Formats: sequence, structure tokens, C-alpha cells
Amino acid sequence: MTQAYVHGYDPKEQTRLQDQAMTLVDLLHSDTAYPPGSQILEAGCGVGAQTVTLARNSPRASIVAMDISETSLAEARHRVMLEGLTNVRFQRGDILDLPFDPGSFDHVFVCFVLEHLKEPGLALQNLKACLRPGGTITVIEGDHGSAFFHPDSDAARAAIRSLVELQARTGGNALIGRSLYPLLRRAGYRQISVSPRTVYADAGKPEMVDGFTKRTFTAMIEGARQSAIREGIVEPAVFDRGVRDLYRTAERDGTFCYTFFKAVGTA
Amino acid sequence: MTQAYVHGYDPKEQTRLQDQAMTLVDLLHSDTAYPPGSQILEAGCGVGAQTVTLARNSPRASIVAMDISETSLAEARHRVMLEGLTNVRFQRGDILDLPFDPGSFDHVFVCFVLEHLKEPGLALQNLKACLRPGGTITVIEGDHGSAFFHPDSDAARAAIRSLVELQARTGGNALIGRSLYPLLRRAGYRQISVSPRTVYADAGKPEMVDGFTKRTFTAMIEGARQSAIREGIVEPAVFDRGVRDLYRTAERDGTFCYTFFKAVGTA
Repeated sequence: MTQAYVHGYDPKEQTRLQDQAMTLVDLLHSDTAYPPGSQILEAGCGVGAQTVTLARNSPRASIVAMDISETSLAEARHRVMLEGLTNVRFQRGDILDLPFDPGSFDHVFVCFVLEHLKEPGLALQNLKACLRPGGTITVIEGDHGSAFFHPDSDAARAAIRSLVELQARTGGNALIGRSLYPLLRRAGYRQISVSPRTVYADAGKPEMVDGFTKRTFTAMIEGARQSAIREGIVEPAVFDRGVRDLYRTAERDGTFCYTFFKAVGTA
Repeated sequence: MTQAYVHGYDPKEQTRLQDQAMTLVDLLHSDTAYPPGSQILEAGCGVGAQTVTLARNSPRASIVAMDISETSLAEARHRVMLEGLTNVRFQRGDILDLPFDPGSFDHVFVCFVLEHLKEPGLALQNLKACLRPGGTITVIEGDHGSAFFHPDSDAARAAIRSLVELQARTGGNALIGRSLYPLLRRAGYRQISVSPRTVYADAGKPEMVDGFTKRTFTAMIEGARQSAIREGIVEPAVFDRGVRDLYRTAERDGTFCYTFFKAVGTA
């Protein structure tokens, strides 16, 4: 049986997601700010890792942060409260069955969500329906096939592929970043603009080595160990060697590179 | 016998290099400008694809453009003359046996050169010796392992790997981009700063699809066909399928991504 692999459902994973949001925040979010008075939907807010940044960057916009999980919503609500942000309200809802009237929002924001969905195209169509004409959607996703590093390592690549395969078996797509453009087009968005956001870490950037290479990317791969091995996707020895080799890229002569994609389209 | 694969030695290849310089110029070069009166060495100028940009961006610096090939130098000289640039002089020389006194230059610029060398570390050491203390080196290189695309294709990846293997057999390294940081460190440079420069093309950026995906990257892979097949590195059918699949990524629903690296270090 396939054990669902979804980010954000245990405390260690939540720490990882927070680390990720801290080190990537400028790269991914600094160019997203919504006008005063605009109505924003964050679809799939999870534990609120991005919600805080979104609310801070658009202090006079009204944000509805939606997630399917009450547990995640509670955590997100707590985090937003701790930051003293008052422009977010939380609502439980399913991205495939949205609890909003057509045209309810000026802008939609979706970050690290589509990768988990069996039907990302349908989700994008649904989100388009709840946007006013001329409203925009912003989508951010990673792409695990974008990872490369020095020293190179077959085992590390096998460990990464095992996570890609695991996510595919649960109906997700860990390589979705490269497909945002055609996905948005097929869902009917116009004026689509996609930009790569490449994270690069070497010993000259110790905060990226620690915050991204080790505590975000390699920790995420490590977190899939049990599921990947139980599913028979990868030999334990290869996986463990791969994780060691990924940590090796965080040493003084190592480098690590990964590309996220940010897409904006108009409804 | 191994046929050396070196860029820039036939007219079709020269067109490709010029196309590459045209579409990538902002991404790779816009942040390189040298002060008036400074002495610059461009080591390995080839046919002058980068020399023109370098000279234009630093109109009051004095540039020595060096290459080991008289044929390339003649082409570079012609190109610089056509552009009306007067701050470049040309000199034949070998990067592994430099014809300059120690400390002759304020800055060194090396673009798409180290990938072809058996001993890139030795070249970097030699270049350091001809820099004054506190002078800088700027290095730009690609990394063919950074390429990924939609639709994904095993054959396309095999075709790319065949070029990597071909370059390895001639003593080069088509994956050198990810190693610039450790290479510069080992050569004794300080204050090393490396930044990724990611090219991304989809149908919303037709000039990148045409200029990069098709006329730069895929044309480069295609240009290695004869050598890769003669060397027995790849089956002709796989290679040809791979090239078709790379062109497929240039269609309306395709995407293509590639990362260059730009490093600056202090002598």
C-alpha cells in the first residue's frame, strides 16, 4: 500500500518548512505584493510558512488562507497571530471543491501545493473560476530534477529520484516546476510569465548551505527514507549513501544548486 | 582516436556562438564593467563573441584579448573592428604559458574557456600570477548537467550526456560550472562570489526559445553528432531521437532550463 507523502504533517517537517521559508523568502516572495483593499486567496496555506510573508508584504490586502487540514490551519493561525498580523482570515476548504462564489478574489496565491495534486490542471481551472476577470494567479513550485551538485554522486541522484517516484505513486509530481507554463495555459490563463528562481549554495554562502542544502533539501530527502524503502523504490544502502553524499556537498569545497519556478497568469 | 571537440572552429559554430552571445548577453555580462584606465586580460577570447560586449561595457578600460588560435584571433579582430571598438588589442598566447609579466593586469576575464582545459586549476593559478594583488578574475562557464526540460526525455538526456562524455575524453569538463567555487579556492583566490545565471525558455519568451533552446543549446548538441557516434558513445538512433526531443521542448507547450555560473575572485 502506498503511504501518502505530504509535507507539513509532523513537527520535524514543520521546522523544515519554516527553515525553507526563512532562507528562500527573498528569492521567492519579494516581488509579490498586492494593492490595498484587494481580496487575496492563498489556496493550500498548510502550516502558514508562506502566509506570514504574504501578509507582511501586502499589509493592506485582505487574505483568506485556505487549507484542507484543520490541523494545519490551527498551526497557521497560531503562527500568523504570533507575528501580530491582522489581515488574514482562515477557512477550511478543498482546492478541488472551493467554497467561494465565482469572481470572489482579485488574486490567488498557490505555493508548494500543485506538486501534491493528482489533477493540478483541474485545481488551476477551479481557482480561475473564483478570480475576477483580469485577476491574477501566482504559482510557486520546485522541481527536484533541477538539483545538481559538486561532488556529483550517483547515489545522491538515486535518493532524489526515489522521492520523485514516491511522490508520483501518491499522485503528485516533484518535477512540476518545469511544467507550470503549459499547465497554466491549458487551464485558460493568459499573459503567463514564468521565471526560474535558482538557489545556489557554496561555502561562501554559509546561510544557504545550512538553511537550504542541509536543512531544507537534504532534510526533505532524508524524511522520505522510511516510505521510499518500504515501497521498495530504493536500496537502503544506496539511499543512505545518497544522503551522506548530499551532506558532503555542504562541506567547504562542495556546491549545491536547485531551481524553483514562479509563474503569474491572468484570469 | 579522439577527435578534439572545441567550440568556434567552423563557420556554423561561429554563428552559434554569436547567437549565444546575443541572447545571453544581459544575463551573463551586464554586471561586468571595469573602471577607466584599468588593464584587462580576456584569456581565451576565441572568435570574439564576448570581446565585443566586454569592450562596449568598459569603453575606457584597455583590453588585451588573447587566444591560442591565430584563426580565431583574426575573426575576433574583424568583429571588434566592425563594431568600431578601439579599446582592444589582440595577442596570441597560451593560457598555460602566459606571455605577460607578473602583476600586469588589474582584472582578468575568462568565459567558456576552462571547460575545454585538462588543467583548469593550473590555468587559474597562471592567471592569478599575471594579476596585481587585489585584482579580480571573472569566470563564466556553463554546466550541461543543469539542463532540464518539458517534455522530459531519456533520449534527450542521453544525447546531452554523450556531449559531456565527448568533452571528458578530450580532457574537458562540460559540468564545470558547479565546480567554479572550489577551483578558484584551490587556485588561491580570495573573496570568491559565485552566482547562478539561469536561462529559462517557454513560448511566452519566443526570443529565448529560438535564441537559446534551438540555436544555442540544441544546435551545440547536434554539432557533436558525428564525433559522439564515431566514438561509439551513443547509438545514432538514440542521439537523433534526443535531438528531436530537444527541439520538441521548443514547441508551444515546452520549456527548457539551463544554468550558467559566474564567479568573481580576488588575487
